[in-house]
Amino acid sequence: MNFPSKLVEEAVLEIAKLPGIGKKTALRLAMHLLKMPETSTDHLSQALTNLRHNIKYCTKCHSIADDILCRICESTRRDATVVCLVEDTKDVIAIENTAQYFGLYHVLGGVISPIEGIGPSELNIQTLLDRVKIDEVKEVILALPATMEGDTTSFYITKKLKALGVKVSTIARGIPVGGEIEFADEITLGRSIMTRTEYQMTHN
Amino acid sequence: MNFPSKLVEEAVLEIAKLPGIGKKTALRLAMHLLKMPETSTDHLSQALTNLRHNIKYCTKCHSIADDILCRICESTRRDATVVCLVEDTKDVIAIENTAQYFGLYHVLGGVISPIEGIGPSELNIQTLLDRVKIDEVKEVILALPATMEGDTTSFYITKKLKALGVKVSTIARGIPVGGEIEFADEITLGRSIMTRTEYQMTHN
Repeated sequence: MNFPSKLVEEAVLEIAKLPGIGKKTALRLAMHLLKMPETSTDHLSQALTNLRHNIKYCTKCHSIADDILCRICESTRRDATVVCLVEDTKDVIAIENTAQYFGLYHVLGGVISPIEGIGPSELNIQTLLDRVKIDEVKEVILALPATMEGDTTSFYITKKLKALGVKVSTIARGIPVGGEIEFADEITLGRSIMTRTEYQMTHN
Repeated sequence: MNFPSKLVEEAVLEIAKLPGIGKKTALRLAMHLLKMPETSTDHLSQALTNLRHNIKYCTKCHSIADDILCRICESTRRDATVVCLVEDTKDVIAIENTAQYFGLYHVLGGVISPIEGIGPSELNIQTLLDRVKIDEVKEVILALPATMEGDTTSFYITKKLKALGVKVSTIARGIPVGGEIEFADEITLGRSIMTRTEYQMTHN
């Protein structure tokens, strides 16, 4: 790509480093910023710098936080006896958006992956076990990805948790709401039949 | 969307102001920056700020430039007697990428649009007429969008240019290379027959 200016080139190359953004899209975004007032760009770059430099992680659940504890761990309205184990803060946000869960979270920071050199010691597993012991957690809900790595991690952690006598559950895998049965893959469909639940007259 | 932190929320809302980027994508980009070293974010925000605050426009063709003149106007290897009229610097980059054009450009900065309140005086029309008079331009190639606004603008400018005795041409509209004839719209197909060119044995 021929750039009319070094400044445009540098901006486009930096924007195009973001995942899912190619050079053409990056150029479109750069040209958009040039059409907007200077303050738009200032607010954007300030917000990014602030985010990266001042981000904190919750000392309890390892999710992103503004303070020592995150908003969820700090809240007195949440059920502290239930902990949902997720890979990433993104998953916390996704589950929070459902407004169906009122327990706490624990962010693992990844899943066990020998290929990528991620073993159990790289993940926040020990702090989860400590929480279960100290905070009188009654149930841990596993919400890790349904991949080979995710399943391996779930298996490894379940063994550790069972030894502590805590109840371990996993989120339901099945046909998505609104999903067509004929298009579902066999494994999902098989699991959804095996883990069928009692029919409920009211759904929310 | 529930954000785990004010910093994440601010960054996501700023990123989501960019065209074609929703909150979910913005969140994904923000989380990506958090996983990368701090210098990645610093380089990105620095490049954006630099771009916005230090951008210059070529005094001759109004394209984006690093200096008083842009690289193209400055070059001695370009044919200064041909000027291609485009709406935007994006179009300059697109035409430069073809490596088929060796004349100069003139960036209009928009097209005439009464609905958006853009009249001829808001566009770089007078400087084009001045260039034609002073710089001994022999041909102006119109490469404005094939929309009603673009056509109106082309018509308006052609009248002004004809009065100066300069040759006015327009880029070919037709079936895209690799395009299927049966899927082309009638107007494009009609124009491509009317403006047919002699068959050439060699293409480059």
